[in-house]
Amino acid sequence: MMRERLAINQITTPTWSLEQAIAGYARHGVRGVGVWRDKLAECGVARARRLLRDADAWVPSLCKAGDLALLRERGPGAALADCRQAIDEAAEIGAGAVVFVCGGGAAAGLARARMEVRDLLREAAPLAAQAGVKLGIEPFHPMHAAERGCVNTLAQALRLCQEAGPGCGVVLDVFHTWWDPDLYDSLAPHCLPHIATVQLCDWRVPTRHPVNDRAMMGDGAADLAGLLACLARSGYAGPYEVEIFSTDWWERDPDEVVRIAVDRCRTLLSNP
Amino acid sequence: MMRERLAINQITTPTWSLEQAIAGYARHGVRGVGVWRDKLAECGVARARRLLRDADAWVPSLCKAGDLALLRERGPGAALADCRQAIDEAAEIGAGAVVFVCGGGAAAGLARARMEVRDLLREAAPLAAQAGVKLGIEPFHPMHAAERGCVNTLAQALRLCQEAGPGCGVVLDVFHTWWDPDLYDSLAPHCLPHIATVQLCDWRVPTRHPVNDRAMMGDGAADLAGLLACLARSGYAGPYEVEIFSTDWWERDPDEVVRIAVDRCRTLLSNP
Repeated sequence: MMRERLAINQITTPTWSLEQAIAGYARHGVRGVGVWRDKLAECGVARARRLLRDADAWVPSLCKAGDLALLRERGPGAALADCRQAIDEAAEIGAGAVVFVCGGGAAAGLARARMEVRDLLREAAPLAAQAGVKLGIEPFHPMHAAERGCVNTLAQALRLCQEAGPGCGVVLDVFHTWWDPDLYDSLAPHCLPHIATVQLCDWRVPTRHPVNDRAMMGDGAADLAGLLACLARSGYAGPYEVEIFSTDWWERDPDEVVRIAVDRCRTLLSNP
Repeated sequence: MMRERLAINQITTPTWSLEQAIAGYARHGVRGVGVWRDKLAECGVARARRLLRDADAWVPSLCKAGDLALLRERGPGAALADCRQAIDEAAEIGAGAVVFVCGGGAAAGLARARMEVRDLLREAAPLAAQAGVKLGIEPFHPMHAAERGCVNTLAQALRLCQEAGPGCGVVLDVFHTWWDPDLYDSLAPHCLPHIATVQLCDWRVPTRHPVNDRAMMGDGAADLAGLLACLARSGYAGPYEVEIFSTDWWERDPDEVVRIAVDRCRTLLSNP
């Protein structure tokens, strides 16, 4: 399943261009590439499509759209336009999902921010459905509720997903959700079709920075084997995507980082 | 309701002894004192009882017992003995609750740590019931799941509470729970008898330290007015306890900190 389902997200190797990432991951047998929009813009969408096709590569997710900061600064129309553009880009490169990052609740208050997210999703989801792309809500760790993401559990994301209808999905990231006592209950078989991609890393102990101190799979406190077993039992057949925000790992040779990540995934994914 | 229900937790004024805290809070009209066991030991339990009685003061909570670190180091018997001692101390000074701090899940793995907490609670709750004290499980913020507290939502604490039976309650701290999308649902009237005390502070934006950077009520992102209104609607009649872990506030004159806290609470509690 490594070839069809394993991907690496570009943020894991931020010094590489998209072209370098496609080639670099392929050197380690990985054809899945989680793409960021700034890297995509740098490469050009049409050229990216060719590079991906020529390398026989595929894209689990395109990051990101949806942040309430944009809505706050330039209004709901601008936020929707940004979603639309991200959806178009995702469709062009054949990405399965656009990562919908909700943005924090401090500016508007958490309750109002959550309603704004719901409203934006309701408008943007049909556009995604039309384009054959999932708009993937990413629940963020509760420590990010004020500043980065006001949707904070998988259950909450799934409720939003059902309210917004077809076109909406969930991006499940281990870093944000590993602590959740209801995580496995929320991964019941009937919820699985909503999971657009599963992003892997580990929870470093201690976590010295709220964003950029994630651990490599196996080096932290998250029960990855338990999560993968739960997903397998429920029938999850989607991508696994390594995504490591880490100033420590960013300082290392990207080829070494990818080699280690693939090695860890081989162990994890062979015993689900 | 200020006199009967408002308390200040000693950690808000850590340079004060228990005697100084009782007198200091009383200068600002506050008779409720959240006590820490190290300060209690320093004062002596019998002397503390007299000081509290003479000042017409009352104790919402005694902090803390239950940490899995103790269980890990010295076994379940030692952890239970520590709970028993804390319960005895709480009964002696008339405290409503012992704050049960669960401890983190990194050492044993989160699932196993949670089972250990459940087992310890089942054994310790009858002791608390017998002593007329609540053993108050404190759900900790999910960012503390690995190192400090493996019970991370109010709903999870309430489930544990029901499993452990009489003697068990919940300590609800705004800092740990303000982000929870299910918080108000978990505060339905039938759950209210389990809430032993409600600890107030605010969520600083940004939060620069995971433990010691809490904000004064009104200075952060938490919807305190919304929470208090929800508690009032559900019929909560227990204590409100100011508890501010903050290196910033700890540097200020304790009398000024208490004056400001009481002032903020007066506004908050007069418009629930």
